[in-house]
Amino acid sequence: MRTIDWRDGRIVAIDQTRLPHEVEFLEIETIEALIAAIRSLAIRGAPAIGVAGALGVALAARLYGDDPAELRRATDAVRAARPTAVNLAWGVDRVRARLDADGADAALAEALDVLEEDVRCCRELSERGARWLVETVGPKVAVQTHCNAGALATVEWGTALGVVRSLQEHGALGHVYAAETRPLLQGARLTVWELAQIGAPHTLVVDSAAASVLAQGLVDAVVVGADRITANGDVINKVGTYPLALAAARVGVPMVVAAPESTVDLATPSGRDVTIEVRAPEEITALGAAALAPQGTETLNYAFDVTPADLVTAIVTERRVILPAAGGRPDDPTDRS
Amino acid sequence: MRTIDWRDGRIVAIDQTRLPHEVEFLEIETIEALIAAIRSLAIRGAPAIGVAGALGVALAARLYGDDPAELRRATDAVRAARPTAVNLAWGVDRVRARLDADGADAALAEALDVLEEDVRCCRELSERGARWLVETVGPKVAVQTHCNAGALATVEWGTALGVVRSLQEHGALGHVYAAETRPLLQGARLTVWELAQIGAPHTLVVDSAAASVLAQGLVDAVVVGADRITANGDVINKVGTYPLALAAARVGVPMVVAAPESTVDLATPSGRDVTIEVRAPEEITALGAAALAPQGTETLNYAFDVTPADLVTAIVTERRVILPAAGGRPDDPTDRS
Repeated sequence: MRTIDWRDGRIVAIDQTRLPHEVEFLEIETIEALIAAIRSLAIRGAPAIGVAGALGVALAARLYGDDPAELRRATDAVRAARPTAVNLAWGVDRVRARLDADGADAALAEALDVLEEDVRCCRELSERGARWLVETVGPKVAVQTHCNAGALATVEWGTALGVVRSLQEHGALGHVYAAETRPLLQGARLTVWELAQIGAPHTLVVDSAAASVLAQGLVDAVVVGADRITANGDVINKVGTYPLALAAARVGVPMVVAAPESTVDLATPSGRDVTIEVRAPEEITALGAAALAPQGTETLNYAFDVTPADLVTAIVTERRVILPAAGGRPDDPTDRS
Repeated sequence: MRTIDWRDGRIVAIDQTRLPHEVEFLEIETIEALIAAIRSLAIRGAPAIGVAGALGVALAARLYGDDPAELRRATDAVRAARPTAVNLAWGVDRVRARLDADGADAALAEALDVLEEDVRCCRELSERGARWLVETVGPKVAVQTHCNAGALATVEWGTALGVVRSLQEHGALGHVYAAETRPLLQGARLTVWELAQIGAPHTLVVDSAAASVLAQGLVDAVVVGADRITANGDVINKVGTYPLALAAARVGVPMVVAAPESTVDLATPSGRDVTIEVRAPEEITALGAAALAPQGTETLNYAFDVTPADLVTAIVTERRVILPAAGGRPDDPTDRS
């Protein structure tokens, strides 16, 4: 089962707002529906929305092939659906360049390449991450993770949870602690569901308790995904990653970021230069029909935070391991790996 | 309006599980009802449960005055209703000693003294905390707080929110950022409600976003309450305080703990020696009728965490300011303040 795919001229994607209670697929035939799915987080996870961006251009080419202005407007709108993850713009730009050069059929082929590459990259970076962890912390690795950087955040397999799956394949997985990840509970809803699917032993904690899990010595490493990695090694990921990195540094446990190279944004110098998405108050003040706070309460609903490079032990991609806390940089020109 | 009081031989307490939607009072006439109210967090907050413990002994003396064994059993049960906050045992022990020495009428007088002292201590420590903040960070103080250490956590006025009220009285209050405080949302439900009642400008954030609020330079100080302060200056408070202290230290913002002397436990050497309450999975996996995670998910639901003394800038009580990060200790024998 793939999280997102192309079938009969449509984008097919699992509706992540319905999980874990229902496993339903969206059949997306319009650009408006695609943008709505990305904004509502029905499709989410930086690599998955990168693929959605790529397939979105193929869909737009199919719908507006004879209207260049409308085609441009549609693909621009997909590109701007969410601001923080670099993968969305990356996916759109890559397929749009191919579309401009070689036409609609070539664009679809390129989008399907993006999709297949995501599968391959996830496998490769997960293997590399698992190997690095076993070499660094020992033969059995207990992991704290945050949000969902699993199969659901990619086409399949995952990044941070891909590393967990690879550890499991090698018999090297200890326990997994998943933080629930307020406000939209991607940890409680999605990561726990995935871990149950693959039979990985796991425990759910509130986000605030992850630091206590670390302080109690229950985990050997923190492993998370990323929405953007800047040239200096700063990591933009789901809000809560930064305090988790502070706790990992305090306790002396490695802070590992697993992400494909498409998440690395060498054009952006540091985390200070990244737009952090601020989402609607209702995500915090209500849960379904239930009010969680007095009506009209003002919120500041950051979707992401910035973890400074000095707190990031390792960034693992399909191509390399970068060690920012030890001075490594994604834009190191001497990096030949 | 008092959070907890004694009226006509009963304990009267606001039901904090119903806030902010309904303001209802419990009339507690049995020891079983008192223990249930403490366990369910209908009565909560270390100072308030200290007062509940004190009043509980007066209630038990009224109910079981002619049965010493039953009286002992009842007061032991109140004392053990929750394990982490030292105030509960302190309140029970103080009134029980008076009961043993001077009888039931004296015990009731002592319990009412505990109640009135809480009011006075909160005012005094709040004044001292506000003064210390203005001297330390400037004439207008923006605050990040966690959980609810307000009027609802005490008889009235509060500790951390007492400091906020005192700042407000002196025209020295900037903005207040309140963390929602999962899983039971005492920040979203109680602190936001209190801040609205007193007209203090405030913004609600998820717990994970508090570190970003600090990193963005939006606050001048973190101010929280405490459930126990050990002899070395470690602070046990609502889970989430420790990562907040890590972020405050990183950003260079003072981490201030406001609590009465009754929360200082000189008999316990450090945070390692304190029992951290672990609560039921359902607090994390469900919200009312709504499931938040797959059924049967294993959790580790710490109610509190330990903030090591080196991360605590100041502990402010009704009697003194202790500076643990600078080497100060609550058990300093040279402290004559």
